[in-house]
Amino acid sequence: MISSVSKRLKKYSVSIIGASGYSGAELTRILLRHDNVELQELYAFSQVGNHVSDLYPALGCDKVYNQYSGETESDIYFLALPHGEALQLVPSLVQAGKIVIDLSGDFRLKNPDEHKEFYKQVKSPEAVMTYGMPELFRDDIISGKTISNPGCYASSIILGVAPLFPGTKNSINVQAINCTSTSGISGAGRSSKIELSFSEMSENVRAYKVGVHQHIPEIMQALGTSATNPSFDFMFTPMIGSLVRGIYSILNVQLESPVEEEQIMELYRNFYKHAPFIRIRDTMTEIKHVVHTNFCDIHIARVTGSGSLLIVTALDNLLKGAAGQAVQNMNIMLGLDERTGLL
Amino acid sequence: MISSVSKRLKKYSVSIIGASGYSGAELTRILLRHDNVELQELYAFSQVGNHVSDLYPALGCDKVYNQYSGETESDIYFLALPHGEALQLVPSLVQAGKIVIDLSGDFRLKNPDEHKEFYKQVKSPEAVMTYGMPELFRDDIISGKTISNPGCYASSIILGVAPLFPGTKNSINVQAINCTSTSGISGAGRSSKIELSFSEMSENVRAYKVGVHQHIPEIMQALGTSATNPSFDFMFTPMIGSLVRGIYSILNVQLESPVEEEQIMELYRNFYKHAPFIRIRDTMTEIKHVVHTNFCDIHIARVTGSGSLLIVTALDNLLKGAAGQAVQNMNIMLGLDERTGLL
Amino acid sequence: MISSVSKRLKKYSVSIIGASGYSGAELTRILLRHDNVELQELYAFSQVGNHVSDLYPALGCDKVYNQYSGETESDIYFLALPHGEALQLVPSLVQAGKIVIDLSGDFRLKNPDEHKEFYKQVKSPEAVMTYGMPELFRDDIISGKTISNPGCYASSIILGVAPLFPGTKNSINVQAINCTSTSGISGAGRSSKIELSFSEMSENVRAYKVGVHQHIPEIMQALGTSATNPSFDFMFTPMIGSLVRGIYSILNVQLESPVEEEQIMELYRNFYKHAPFIRIRDTMTEIKHVVHTNFCDIHIARVTGSGSLLIVTALDNLLKGAAGQAVQNMNIMLGLDERTGLL
Amino acid sequence: MISSVSKRLKKYSVSIIGASGYSGAELTRILLRHDNVELQELYAFSQVGNHVSDLYPALGCDKVYNQYSGETESDIYFLALPHGEALQLVPSLVQAGKIVIDLSGDFRLKNPDEHKEFYKQVKSPEAVMTYGMPELFRDDIISGKTISNPGCYASSIILGVAPLFPGTKNSINVQAINCTSTSGISGAGRSSKIELSFSEMSENVRAYKVGVHQHIPEIMQALGTSATNPSFDFMFTPMIGSLVRGIYSILNVQLESPVEEEQIMELYRNFYKHAPFIRIRDTMTEIKHVVHTNFCDIHIARVTGSGSLLIVTALDNLLKGAAGQAVQNMNIMLGLDERTGLL
Repeated sequence: MISSVSKRLKKYSVSIIGASGYSGAELTRILLRHDNVELQELYAFSQVGNHVSDLYPALGCDKVYNQYSGETESDIYFLALPHGEALQLVPSLVQAGKIVIDLSGDFRLKNPDEHKEFYKQVKSPEAVMTYGMPELFRDDIISGKTISNPGCYASSIILGVAPLFPGTKNSINVQAINCTSTSGISGAGRSSKIELSFSEMSENVRAYKVGVHQHIPEIMQALGTSATNPSFDFMFTPMIGSLVRGIYSILNVQLESPVEEEQIMELYRNFYKHAPFIRIRDTMTEIKHVVHTNFCDIHIARVTGSGSLLIVTALDNLLKGAAGQAVQNMNIMLGLDERTGLL
Repeated sequence: MISSVSKRLKKYSVSIIGASGYSGAELTRILLRHDNVELQELYAFSQVGNHVSDLYPALGCDKVYNQYSGETESDIYFLALPHGEALQLVPSLVQAGKIVIDLSGDFRLKNPDEHKEFYKQVKSPEAVMTYGMPELFRDDIISGKTISNPGCYASSIILGVAPLFPGTKNSINVQAINCTSTSGISGAGRSSKIELSFSEMSENVRAYKVGVHQHIPEIMQALGTSATNPSFDFMFTPMIGSLVRGIYSILNVQLESPVEEEQIMELYRNFYKHAPFIRIRDTMTEIKHVVHTNFCDIHIARVTGSGSLLIVTALDNLLKGAAGQAVQNMNIMLGLDERTGLL
Repeated sequence: MISSVSKRLKKYSVSIIGASGYSGAELTRILLRHDNVELQELYAFSQVGNHVSDLYPALGCDKVYNQYSGETESDIYFLALPHGEALQLVPSLVQAGKIVIDLSGDFRLKNPDEHKEFYKQVKSPEAVMTYGMPELFRDDIISGKTISNPGCYASSIILGVAPLFPGTKNSINVQAINCTSTSGISGAGRSSKIELSFSEMSENVRAYKVGVHQHIPEIMQALGTSATNPSFDFMFTPMIGSLVRGIYSILNVQLESPVEEEQIMELYRNFYKHAPFIRIRDTMTEIKHVVHTNFCDIHIARVTGSGSLLIVTALDNLLKGAAGQAVQNMNIMLGLDERTGLL
Repeated sequence: MISSVSKRLKKYSVSIIGASGYSGAELTRILLRHDNVELQELYAFSQVGNHVSDLYPALGCDKVYNQYSGETESDIYFLALPHGEALQLVPSLVQAGKIVIDLSGDFRLKNPDEHKEFYKQVKSPEAVMTYGMPELFRDDIISGKTISNPGCYASSIILGVAPLFPGTKNSINVQAINCTSTSGISGAGRSSKIELSFSEMSENVRAYKVGVHQHIPEIMQALGTSATNPSFDFMFTPMIGSLVRGIYSILNVQLESPVEEEQIMELYRNFYKHAPFIRIRDTMTEIKHVVHTNFCDIHIARVTGSGSLLIVTALDNLLKGAAGQAVQNMNIMLGLDERTGLL
């Protein structure tokens, strides 16, 4: 077993496959400064031979991007690849007994039909990993060896309503969730699409994939139900705005019957009492409060007499929504303080 | 009557009270170039004696801001003042027989109790003007002489759902509307608040006044119901983002029973068939599609089998949400093509 | 002669070749609203068959982009093509007796060697048109039939120092000009380059082509000298910043001997006394003062005892730096008030 | 002596006076995570009693801002106050034998006449501290106990040309330096000025204080000359752009006679060979390369045959231009690796 072996080592060796995208760059930044790991190889297909210092000078990293050819020398592999590519690479890493943390959507959905519908790709029912959201599935992560890291929108939405589904049970009768999320444009990756150019997106806002975004089945699954046969109505409208980083989610939850604000607050405080990166805020949160951090802020903005809750969440899509949460998962798997390298 | 008198004149004389704010500046820009009016006086309390060309050089206007002292020489008065101030000035203008178009919230609400609750101010039940939303209340505007110009959020929301309330009747059984709107920061006016500074708002998103914004009773009134005793659930979350102009509203409407997409599309197309500034768009709209125009774009993004509609609207908060709609109202009152000066 | 013929017509017919770029879109917007022209055809190679209303909904234009196949039906042709393409199309338009206004760099430089050095392209010495900067070369424009419209940086720099070169003579002994210009990103065109994406350029500033930008020989030529054998030292550093529109030029001019500030002011006021789009400003100008206008603002910020002048200019790169100046040129050629359609 | 005493301690106690501004917040962030110090008190006059977690939630700091009343319990005091305020507070801290690092301009200028001219304030000739620019004055810092931390523009300019002034001698005959710098708006501090609001500054650029900025005498002094009696011509144009952080300086240097590019490169490489935060870059630098880091990037963009150099520098105004450099100075004074807490 890796864990018993490597815990005796001073530092774990870590490599990143897909290191040249924005999530890969954040992983690089965090892991370079992480006391318990040694950043070994950076693999990046389109940037092979290029220096990190040319692509991301702010990282202060003097490594070179290499071609990944099936190496398995490191103890831990992070994969930050476009959807569909990790499916091919993961099996041999698993066979070699490596800790694998995959940031793509490839291994998130248990239901291959939903995967096919939302990712336009066929996969086997076995291609599923532990869903790496520590605040909900910590025990699974501790005992797991392969982690599928949650999506950025999914993280901001699941964390915002999870206390209403303790043990992923819809215990206080959620009838409907309507979610509108504004994402930073870095969520689209390091991209040359004309509709993501500065001239098109400065001072702009644009919704897309309304009701069909691939994070919908992931959210439903994490909340104990499914997109195919949901136990509550769910509508999700993702938007991109004139910002690089951050996700801001407005969650309107309709309960079957009214609850007191105090009861809701207690539910949230209890649910997250051992979660160092979740902050239940008494005042309105903003993107600015969380960017460049691994925090997810949650504010219960309104509890109405008709059983409607308005919850606002904010996180950094590249950190708590990607690289930060991935390292948090690694820390938990390695038995470290989960905040290591993330404060 | 002004209208019969002034229609014989070649050009109507127009003055703006509160000309130095952002809406006042847009009014100045439009009216300077409007073929049927002569821009006479610009009144601006905090900028008395200053040149327009120093405050807003882009307007290319060589006028000076003057103190308003009860003058009534112009045929038409636009008021673009902070809430509460028009209440004092309007009566003498009305008595002098002037056409008055007020851009504040002072004369919008018929129910003084709602006005008191949402504007923290007492007003008499008589302090109400014709609600100047041409697409819904054209006949009232034609026959009116004083116009209360709609709020910016209110415009973007009412126009997005009005076809579901023909004749302001909830004819297809709307059960709930949940609205999340992103506004440009100019909506807060020409302001020196620290939380609206560039350093605080660049790349930021912030919700505020969740469920308590003063446009809520205005919206409910325009849709034939009231905030006090609503005929459907209504939740509204306003946000400001990292942009100067524009309002982008995501409207999730829950109907009692499902309707066909085609039926909804027909409803919208019919409702707005004579509305030159409303565009029903087949593809997703964006802020960029409408800024610096008087258009309000509407896109029906999703009609689900469970009777849920997802509607997206976009407009320029300073134009269709303020100065543009105000001039559109003036055009209608004067019997001109409503597009005059607005294309 | 076109001019004598078409002046009897009510409206001139105008077409744009290369209408789908940012300058083409601004031309479309202006010409649609211009009282003396009828916008006929919009040609756009990569967008053939697409609707203007899909690409640029804010224009409110219901035309379709067509393929240009040598048509010569219009009276006037604007060309807004990537550098190098107009060289092929212009000869047949000239032969057909059309008024041609080209916004590219193809016909600006008289010296084919300089053209080759800076545009990496061979052209014949005959491929030169009247340089369309009305404030310097009005008489040539009046008598011309083909106009090469100035570059955006070039406009902001030439207009900022031209009064020091009356009749393009270096009359007060300019020894050196050092210019640093910040441009909006739209200056790079409607582009999908990764380095112009929102995620890369938001909150960024980047210099490029230091001392080798293709506008350098154009500037020198307009000031009566040449890049090859300059009569004064010239250094130019272009930058792009976190903005879509506008060019802001800081011009540090070193004179052989000191001059009085009053003398400089008089020189500038006199030089531009008949130029409706040039504003000599007593206070600092900003990009915000000129965007969405055809103005070029000039502020003499500092005159030192050692003969150093610090001049700041601001203009909209798509208007006074491209489409606006092009229409100004057309107006002058047609004998119209040069401000027509531009205020 | 503090240093001999406290070096035996595990951690130095540190307090910040003026902790609630942007530089104070960056100091808080860095010092909270610095292995060799214990952040003790945060003093902030306008925010007394407020929680850091409310003002700057991203810092993840649970301290409260207190009133400063002359306490001297900490080993080290950072002062990040508006100009003029440190002059009053520093003497008693010095008398108490504390290490003092002042980020204001109060103690930078040796010449009280220049201080009076540029800061509009009288100070005694004794009110001068060691100028804390490690790359130029490391030995003075090692032996010093009070440090005046350089200004942000000054840092970006001095570092860009210092290799031409080895030992602060103008050894290769610099005749003139013309500098244009673009700064992020955070440089103006946490401010509610209307001209720094988002609506005014988004997509804007504005120059100010041309040739009269208070960093001019600081730059001249650091380069071995003075603003009053300069040994070379110096012109400085500061600008703010549409960005929060960063300073980008374009430095045009005129030498008496031409030098080879290789000679210049060698000069720079040698000068900075022991400077871990200075990066001589072969390709163009950008603001994005340095924000959220303590790096100052320098690129020699052009060396002309006429002896003109074009140098571009980039740094983060709040880090290498303020808080980062301040901590770098502290590290050097304490005998630590100067990079501690800054990578």
